[in-house]
Amino acid sequence: MAASMIEIPESKVVGQQNLEDFATKLLQAVAVPPDEARAVATALVWSDLRARFPQGVSRLPVFIQRVQRQLITTPARLGWTTVAPAAAMLDAQNAFGHIAGSAAMRKAIELAKQNGIGAVTVSHSNLYGAAAYFVSLAADERCIGFTCTNAVAKVAPYGGMRAVFGTNPLAFGCPTSSGVPILIDLSTSALAGSVARNLGETGGSLPEGVALNKNGFPTTNPADLSQGCLLPAAGPKGFGLGMMVDILCGVLSGAAMSHEVGSMYNTWDKPVNTGHFCGAIDIGKFQNVDAFLQRIDAMIEWVRAAGPDGEVRFPGEIRGEHAAMYARTGIPLPPETVKPLEKLAHELTVAAPW
Amino acid sequence: MAASMIEIPESKVVGQQNLEDFATKLLQAVAVPPDEARAVATALVWSDLRARFPQGVSRLPVFIQRVQRQLITTPARLGWTTVAPAAAMLDAQNAFGHIAGSAAMRKAIELAKQNGIGAVTVSHSNLYGAAAYFVSLAADERCIGFTCTNAVAKVAPYGGMRAVFGTNPLAFGCPTSSGVPILIDLSTSALAGSVARNLGETGGSLPEGVALNKNGFPTTNPADLSQGCLLPAAGPKGFGLGMMVDILCGVLSGAAMSHEVGSMYNTWDKPVNTGHFCGAIDIGKFQNVDAFLQRIDAMIEWVRAAGPDGEVRFPGEIRGEHAAMYARTGIPLPPETVKPLEKLAHELTVAAPW
Repeated sequence: MAASMIEIPESKVVGQQNLEDFATKLLQAVAVPPDEARAVATALVWSDLRARFPQGVSRLPVFIQRVQRQLITTPARLGWTTVAPAAAMLDAQNAFGHIAGSAAMRKAIELAKQNGIGAVTVSHSNLYGAAAYFVSLAADERCIGFTCTNAVAKVAPYGGMRAVFGTNPLAFGCPTSSGVPILIDLSTSALAGSVARNLGETGGSLPEGVALNKNGFPTTNPADLSQGCLLPAAGPKGFGLGMMVDILCGVLSGAAMSHEVGSMYNTWDKPVNTGHFCGAIDIGKFQNVDAFLQRIDAMIEWVRAAGPDGEVRFPGEIRGEHAAMYARTGIPLPPETVKPLEKLAHELTVAAPW
Repeated sequence: MAASMIEIPESKVVGQQNLEDFATKLLQAVAVPPDEARAVATALVWSDLRARFPQGVSRLPVFIQRVQRQLITTPARLGWTTVAPAAAMLDAQNAFGHIAGSAAMRKAIELAKQNGIGAVTVSHSNLYGAAAYFVSLAADERCIGFTCTNAVAKVAPYGGMRAVFGTNPLAFGCPTSSGVPILIDLSTSALAGSVARNLGETGGSLPEGVALNKNGFPTTNPADLSQGCLLPAAGPKGFGLGMMVDILCGVLSGAAMSHEVGSMYNTWDKPVNTGHFCGAIDIGKFQNVDAFLQRIDAMIEWVRAAGPDGEVRFPGEIRGEHAAMYARTGIPLPPETVKPLEKLAHELTVAAPW
């Protein structure tokens, strides 16, 4: 009898299609239109399929709460302004970040196909998840993709002890001939925000040298982050890159910048007004695409040859293997994701796929 | 008597204009045309004025040697191809990197003024020095500038123990209302190549954790770098960024990539075939420029307020102060720069300005 009272958190293995369908139904249950729900679900499950669980369906509870409070607007009303032949601005009017980011990257690709390069800024958006997802859309179209996003302030500038910038990730994508693109995706902080949050939720410690407490002293306690801050990656380098991201996403776009950017989890009196930047370069304008891909493959071989067999991988390679494996075996959703989703499914009377 | 036999290396303080004139004359002495000599001198002294001595006139002996051996072509014969409305490719045909880089950034600015954004790749170039110089040209024109360059292979990929990429620096520039631009300039390696070289020349040690010897073991001995390698900045982050730089500069441009790129100091049988990438965004297409600058100024104030008074600076601020100071007081050229320049001046029968 006692045994049945102890709830052991369990991971659940869910097929990719089933997980996408489940996420789509949850979103439709709060009146997200079918196409839009499917697009958000696709982007989220793209992350889960690559074992990037903090950017996957684990975000659905907070997104759905924000839809219910009308802080995320759905259906999306995307406000476009073409500001120059190769440049556009998107006022996402509080649409899902995944909808805004995908639309912006698709526009950047279209502009690049016409002009060689294209740039799109996005304002009034929401957290858009894995930056790598958007540059993978560019790589699929034989383009080089670049994107970055600002985020709620969590990171001190180099030499400082209070948060000014978000973890402000940036991503760069490039096709390869194997079909698994090079996906470079990095937070400009010493630790990604989602990793810090996850360590907090699972009772782990922060690594040394990545965070300060509210008094500006080094800490490894994730709880200190609520009033403390993360440090930039590689000191002045991550500081510079984080500031670059907020200039592109916060200042150039007209979105919120620095600590004006709201938190998905803590800002409930107004939309978060996140900004993004998406750029694309049409490879075929510069080089014969097949010749370009051969050179990329050669570069990858040289990278691999720099260490013992199989130990050195190109950026995106390991996650690409996760995607291929999970597409066959199903996605092992971690327990900390499963439980809130079960609760949400129950509330919205949607059947869980496990 | 004995005292006169001991040569104590001395730094020399030289006025900015005198140093530019001196550098121009040295270059003219090996048949660099006056305008081109002046342009290279201006770029080199721009670095010295900011106390970036490894990227300044200290490079003249090797550049002049490469001109004499016809490995740097002068006068420059720049081969342009406009590949799309917002994109161009420059075959620099072994011109000075500073000439190629400046021309490419000016072209990117021109394309951005027409199209919102512009991109220019450069192949068959040489070491172009401080990446920040080129983005400062964009900031002067009220543009956001981005540039990067590949370089001789010195840096292992994350997890590897042999060099595959150069220190592959990248820079981002943005105007401020004070006239001192934000200049973000970082090598993607844990230590800049010029710093490593300087430590080697001056008998210093490398910091811990930035280099491996030829057997793949950690080292702090700069001499080990000739057969060993540097590590990427922040592990996978610097690895990804360094690969991004070589994709843009080496693959997209058609220049050499990875260990195909020659060394200014060690490759004497052929030109180095360095590649660069220059991009510009015309701020005025996206925002009212004055409003943009006010937002940038506010961001800078928030950065400053993140630490004790005067301790947190924006990227480029300290070097901007150096420039203002040295413009008044003269530039204190370090002894290790002075001596080779005296020797060169003697050989070319040019009078040194000290």
